[in-house]
Amino acid sequence: MLMVALVHYPTINKEGRVVTTSVTNFDIHDIARASTTFGVARYYLVTPVELQQQFVRRIVHHWLEGSGAEYNPTRKEALTAVEIAPDLAAVGEAIERDFGRAATWVATSARRYGNTISCAALRRRLRDEPDQPVCLIFGTGSGLHPQILEEADLILEPIQGPTAYNHLSVRSAVSIYLDRLLAVRGD
Amino acid sequence: MLMVALVHYPTINKEGRVVTTSVTNFDIHDIARASTTFGVARYYLVTPVELQQQFVRRIVHHWLEGSGAEYNPTRKEALTAVEIAPDLAAVGEAIERDFGRAATWVATSARRYGNTISCAALRRRLRDEPDQPVCLIFGTGSGLHPQILEEADLILEPIQGPTAYNHLSVRSAVSIYLDRLLAVRGD
Repeated sequence: MLMVALVHYPTINKEGRVVTTSVTNFDIHDIARASTTFGVARYYLVTPVELQQQFVRRIVHHWLEGSGAEYNPTRKEALTAVEIAPDLAAVGEAIERDFGRAATWVATSARRYGNTISCAALRRRLRDEPDQPVCLIFGTGSGLHPQILEEADLILEPIQGPTAYNHLSVRSAVSIYLDRLLAVRGD
Repeated sequence: MLMVALVHYPTINKEGRVVTTSVTNFDIHDIARASTTFGVARYYLVTPVELQQQFVRRIVHHWLEGSGAEYNPTRKEALTAVEIAPDLAAVGEAIERDFGRAATWVATSARRYGNTISCAALRRRLRDEPDQPVCLIFGTGSGLHPQILEEADLILEPIQGPTAYNHLSVRSAVSIYLDRLLAVRGD
């Protein structure tokens, strides 16, 4: 059972400084749609900023119960998996409350670290232990604060194309990982 | 050799009617960054609307030569692959002019059609015939006009998660297909 957490604090900017990023409308929609396509149990938008939480609530409400629900029912379906949390501790509590087990935390990064797990290995683990909640953690800005990477149980292997360029948008990275971990395939 | 064409006309809306969609800033950036990560030779933004072409030119210019180039060199690198074209015929001419061969056209769709090619088969073809330009065609809105699907040489298999929901954003779909076709893998 897979969850996605999109972290807006603590993240780093391109100079490596700790920053709080803004939630974007595209982050909400694109990742909710990918999560629903691949059967992700929950998509947590993580920000401690009350105004940002309100922004997310307003958008989700528009599509779930406002005029958006009638205008585009497929958006409604996608956004039902969205939850808002102030920090990862709150995500952990929500997972334990809703799914009865403590989550396994899997951080993501464009760099390779020691405790890296391959997508193939995590795919097998999700298949073999379907009741264990696994929460993928994604950073906005230039990535997760190093402390989150240190505290995670595992770090997922970076996505590597045939070039040295590794600046995917977080929306692209989430989509690719969900496809690798959960797509229906011949294997 | 792979190219990506993102079509804003002719596409269909969710009622199946032919529409012209607007270029979004996220379509430009996310797909340019994914294209650069995976070594795509060109990313064509296809719109017949002159004002929309100007919008794209302005954004690309900001990051290639304006103040954005210094602020964020990785965006500059991503946007060098971007070109603007009024329609797919012009894309075909540009490919033939720049790469010396007529393109193979591979359309994408969330539905399955007769002349579908699997991602694995197209991945092998790209590897075995590295000099043949292959242009992946993506639709915005609710997808490509049926005529484009009919005229394409091949249609790429739809992305299928473990749910019946198949409303990925075009940014997610492009990212997933590029990963499937071009990612560095053990196989």
